[in-house]
Amino acid sequence: MTEKTKIHRLPERGASDRETIHAILDEGFICHAAYVIAKRPVVIPTLYARDGDRVLLHGSNSMGLARAVRNGSPLSVAVTHIDGLVVARSGFHSSANYRSVVIHGFGEILTGGDHARALDVIVDTLIPGRTADIRPNTDAELKQTSVIRLALEEVSAKVRSGDPSDDPEDMNSGVWAGVIPMTLTAEDPIAAADLEDGVETPDYLDPYRG
Amino acid sequence: MTEKTKIHRLPERGASDRETIHAILDEGFICHAAYVIAKRPVVIPTLYARDGDRVLLHGSNSMGLARAVRNGSPLSVAVTHIDGLVVARSGFHSSANYRSVVIHGFGEILTGGDHARALDVIVDTLIPGRTADIRPNTDAELKQTSVIRLALEEVSAKVRSGDPSDDPEDMNSGVWAGVIPMTLTAEDPIAAADLEDGVETPDYLDPYRG
Repeated sequence: MTEKTKIHRLPERGASDRETIHAILDEGFICHAAYVIAKRPVVIPTLYARDGDRVLLHGSNSMGLARAVRNGSPLSVAVTHIDGLVVARSGFHSSANYRSVVIHGFGEILTGGDHARALDVIVDTLIPGRTADIRPNTDAELKQTSVIRLALEEVSAKVRSGDPSDDPEDMNSGVWAGVIPMTLTAEDPIAAADLEDGVETPDYLDPYRG
Repeated sequence: MTEKTKIHRLPERGASDRETIHAILDEGFICHAAYVIAKRPVVIPTLYARDGDRVLLHGSNSMGLARAVRNGSPLSVAVTHIDGLVVARSGFHSSANYRSVVIHGFGEILTGGDHARALDVIVDTLIPGRTADIRPNTDAELKQTSVIRLALEEVSAKVRSGDPSDDPEDMNSGVWAGVIPMTLTAEDPIAAADLEDGVETPDYLDPYRG
């Protein structure tokens, strides 16, 4: 987005970059996954979770994404957190603060026990402890879902943070410059309208209290 | 993401859907743009703005995105707002609340006056009134930037909102269900560390006050 963008690449940059990449992935739960069909790109938002050195992408069996992976399409997957608007003294240096990870590779459609476990990993990553509270997936549900596993091998992170990086000749132009910070914030959990009486909000939702 | 997802397609669904699509696009400023290079998809986050019945994607001239469009690659562009986590009584119905728009088509690299105007439209869409305060782009800056214009023709919106849609047999399982609302929220603008004394925060940043 601007020349100030820092690019971290694996594996050249080593452990600290893997930490950066994992931290960015662990903060989110919706990615944008792109595949190719009939020489055209298709990008869609979908749920994901990191599982060690891989990401698990959640899909339904009717989704183009799972079909494309079955047909051998390579993938490109991005996770982006918006951290703010960068209000520079020129349009040219105006930008956004953000952290993003992009992964390339060939996904693998999980089957059998791997598939069932991966669905649980996705739920427990979004809401740690949740699967202990809910029933297992039925066979019919397993048949309707797909999980695509994609290795964190060809992966890079980009991070832009902090003040605008204006040109020296614009510094005394009398124009305001700075940053408008932004964060994806959670509010208190809202019980479903049809929730049975007497069911308390579970402790494992505490991290999401606003 | 789930079977509850509503899909709106243009032009079949008419004005109200165009309103939905425009509203989703107008709320954001970072999209995920996918293109194809050597039969592989590449998805990247980039700044965008809606300009009537088109979107304008911002890029640098060194970006793969602009190069791919020059080489004839079709595009797929997604804008997604995360509205919350849907905590259902089963893993299967657990989901996210979100609003997204996906656009397909062939982009056009703008040149000359169209290019310069488009850069101003992007800045003024992010921060209405900003270009009246800052100097115009220089020729060197114009040469380093690209704007890709993409028509809102092949475009669809997906929206999931509200409570989980659980199966009847799970309703009395004693498990909590509901929604964790999420919003991208702005905090008060923070002046750059090197801002000249006496420069006030402009009124046009008021919409971004936390």
